[in-house]
Amino acid sequence: MVRLTLAQRVAGAIAQQITNGALNAGDKLPSLRAYMRLHGYSKNTVITAYEHLAGRGLIEARHGQGYFVCQKPAPSQEDEEPPAYSRALDTIWMMRQQFVRDPGHSHLGEGFPPVDWLMDMRMDKFHRQVVRGGVTTLFRYGTRLGNPALRQRLTQKLADYNIAVSPRQIVTTLGANHGMDLIIRRYLQPGDPVLVENPGYYPLFGKLQLQGARMLGIPRQADGPDLDALERVLASERPKLFFLQSVGHNPTGSDLSPAKAHRLLQIAKTHDLLLVENDAMADFKPSSAIKLSTLDAFDRTLYLGSFSKSISAALRVGFIAGSKQRIDELADLKMLLHNSSAEYSERTVEVMLSEGHFVRHLLRLQDRLRAATTQGLDVLDSLGADVFCRPQQSLYLWARFPQASDANQLTRHCLTQGVMLAPGSIFAVDRTVPTPWTRLNVAYLTDPAFRRSIETMDESQNGTSHATRSSTKWFDADEWD
Amino acid sequence: MVRLTLAQRVAGAIAQQITNGALNAGDKLPSLRAYMRLHGYSKNTVITAYEHLAGRGLIEARHGQGYFVCQKPAPSQEDEEPPAYSRALDTIWMMRQQFVRDPGHSHLGEGFPPVDWLMDMRMDKFHRQVVRGGVTTLFRYGTRLGNPALRQRLTQKLADYNIAVSPRQIVTTLGANHGMDLIIRRYLQPGDPVLVENPGYYPLFGKLQLQGARMLGIPRQADGPDLDALERVLASERPKLFFLQSVGHNPTGSDLSPAKAHRLLQIAKTHDLLLVENDAMADFKPSSAIKLSTLDAFDRTLYLGSFSKSISAALRVGFIAGSKQRIDELADLKMLLHNSSAEYSERTVEVMLSEGHFVRHLLRLQDRLRAATTQGLDVLDSLGADVFCRPQQSLYLWARFPQASDANQLTRHCLTQGVMLAPGSIFAVDRTVPTPWTRLNVAYLTDPAFRRSIETMDESQNGTSHATRSSTKWFDADEWD
Repeated sequence: MVRLTLAQRVAGAIAQQITNGALNAGDKLPSLRAYMRLHGYSKNTVITAYEHLAGRGLIEARHGQGYFVCQKPAPSQEDEEPPAYSRALDTIWMMRQQFVRDPGHSHLGEGFPPVDWLMDMRMDKFHRQVVRGGVTTLFRYGTRLGNPALRQRLTQKLADYNIAVSPRQIVTTLGANHGMDLIIRRYLQPGDPVLVENPGYYPLFGKLQLQGARMLGIPRQADGPDLDALERVLASERPKLFFLQSVGHNPTGSDLSPAKAHRLLQIAKTHDLLLVENDAMADFKPSSAIKLSTLDAFDRTLYLGSFSKSISAALRVGFIAGSKQRIDELADLKMLLHNSSAEYSERTVEVMLSEGHFVRHLLRLQDRLRAATTQGLDVLDSLGADVFCRPQQSLYLWARFPQASDANQLTRHCLTQGVMLAPGSIFAVDRTVPTPWTRLNVAYLTDPAFRRSIETMDESQNGTSHATRSSTKWFDADEWD
Repeated sequence: MVRLTLAQRVAGAIAQQITNGALNAGDKLPSLRAYMRLHGYSKNTVITAYEHLAGRGLIEARHGQGYFVCQKPAPSQEDEEPPAYSRALDTIWMMRQQFVRDPGHSHLGEGFPPVDWLMDMRMDKFHRQVVRGGVTTLFRYGTRLGNPALRQRLTQKLADYNIAVSPRQIVTTLGANHGMDLIIRRYLQPGDPVLVENPGYYPLFGKLQLQGARMLGIPRQADGPDLDALERVLASERPKLFFLQSVGHNPTGSDLSPAKAHRLLQIAKTHDLLLVENDAMADFKPSSAIKLSTLDAFDRTLYLGSFSKSISAALRVGFIAGSKQRIDELADLKMLLHNSSAEYSERTVEVMLSEGHFVRHLLRLQDRLRAATTQGLDVLDSLGADVFCRPQQSLYLWARFPQASDANQLTRHCLTQGVMLAPGSIFAVDRTVPTPWTRLNVAYLTDPAFRRSIETMDESQNGTSHATRSSTKWFDADEWD
């Protein structure tokens, strides 16, 4: 805690020097080691401070040369940083780091399945069928609700989950994150309280911060959100929305139990809550997995669907299902902000869903996932890890290790071994509280580099991690290009 | 004016009945004629009232059966309509209407070129090259700034306009409207004043309303915005942004003169204004057309590019160019809201831009446009129209007709003849002030139905337009499916 505050103070001091003109665009900053010795700070403090400055775009790392001051922003902008953007800066910084992908590293921290799990459904193979659907619409704006054939197809997909829905109750989106943004902008005003799971999906947190909503974190347990905690919060607060993930929860990999689903819906009714069920992991689980929208039939739920992790994240196609009234309004906002969805991508998804091959693809995906989950749990057990829950199949496992009380420390250590982790702090509503938990992608748990890096970690490293120059790769903004 | 208020009062009364439960979901509303007789209102009043209710999703037209009350919204939502969504309802309603496309109608009011002008660049033909660019990235999230090869290609496109830019100064977007939204959310807070052109691009107005920004309309003249009016506004207001279109302005078809561009940039410097140059029509004009970003080199401009009208609106690919600092921040917001752009669509655009064929496509597009503009001006002259400006080539012409002092009336009349217009009120900052101006798509001006409908319009129809049942097609929400 003290360390974090110190790093922030260091970052603030350097930022001041840049604003004052003491440091100019193109100036090289002292090396980590030099700055450390100069001021008597620990290396971690200096790294964290530099990372924050890089995240804010004030300095940049140049490969193998160190850190340099970026082109100075116009003073008028620097002075009047609008609060919305500032509020979201923390999440922006995290997301920047998460998206950096270094081919030399092992990607335990990734949120994405390995590409070879998806390769059998290459979207480009279906272009002929896509065109057969009509050439002229390949040029025009799509419709407000989204491609009708795709929405029809989605009603069948939802029917597999025992969710009865008409195509008018579905609006396509440019991915599930776009869906979240539409819901936030429709229902939340700056200052409004909103319920989220803690830990939870952090890109959601950033969108809520941007809108100025006030997040109320509900602890996530192995069978769903802590409903006693929820009721305590609802005794004094009047939030309208609760964003949650019933199935394959990110980051814990846990599933909602039927009993909790039932009780949660009753609480929602009593307190007039709208439950936003993010089901991004639907394709990674049996279709019988319990979903709030199945029980509730869209009385007070909205359902978010995605194809990013089971077909491709490069298409940007997702959807929202709900009551006709709510979907109409969300479609209005979509039209207002984007004119329409990406007809070409939507038709591609529609053609792929209609292929019998798609069902086989999902079965194979789930077979792989089940095998990887079993193996992954074995690896974690052999490393003496404490695992949050033990799902039969989940892309994520949530674990802590006896030798690391702060997962940020563990993450820094693993980076020196070429292993990228996703420390629990990323997924926390309050990121300043140290947490021992880490999200692990099951597809990479058998990587020997991971075992090595856990085995070489010991508690003595806390506070003065042996970070080397190579660890700053993680923070290198230039890799965006 | 009085009529509009009356229609709003009628709509309000019906909405109240729906809320009170006097009218229930599925109930049929009185026919237009019946309601008219019952209350002694003009048919236009009733049509307008019904349209507003349909636009708000409270009632819906069923083909050939009349209007019915929609599924009743949950009372809690109805009571607490968040202000942001309400503010934008007017634009949402307009956009809904604009997107309705009836095959039987002539589309003078469309903002889009005819599809056969675009057909020679069918995106699906390029799928092999797209895949050749690397298979694995077809599955992953794209990068924060957007596909590097596309951004490299865009630097060349901008170099043709004498705009020197590096790939790091470009962020791709999901269309130009997405770009506007990112800029609005980065720079504007609720209540902030913002400059727009009047008339101007109305989907922009809706996005500004949604954010709660306060629009200050600057009259658009044939050579650009009225700079004297701008200076008068700046004497008392401190807006940070001015959204405008230098080239092929929508809806007037006018271009910014070099002298005005120069003076505008000086004013922007004095008043610390950021100019957002929407260049959606770039591909429809010679590359030598004057642009603010060319003169200013991104000191206080942001440039919005689009491929919707020259390649396809179904791909949803656009971009923003500007200073590195501003682009970095906008890329952060894009990542926060959407994770990444649509890699697949971006690579498709990149491959198409790299084809020598693309230059020939644009030349042919411009040849067609030039011929259509000349013919269109001839048609308007022969109809005695007053044309706002006479560009050599522009997708839009802005005209008024001696027999129609209110373009809304003209639009209603033309609809009875199967001709869809885009009346000037749509593009006005204050939509309650009647305007005689209409935006006309040059591609459809030679349609005999248009001439017929103008010639059958006479001033006596004002106030009691001969709207028939068929005219309500324009407002039929069911066509969204």
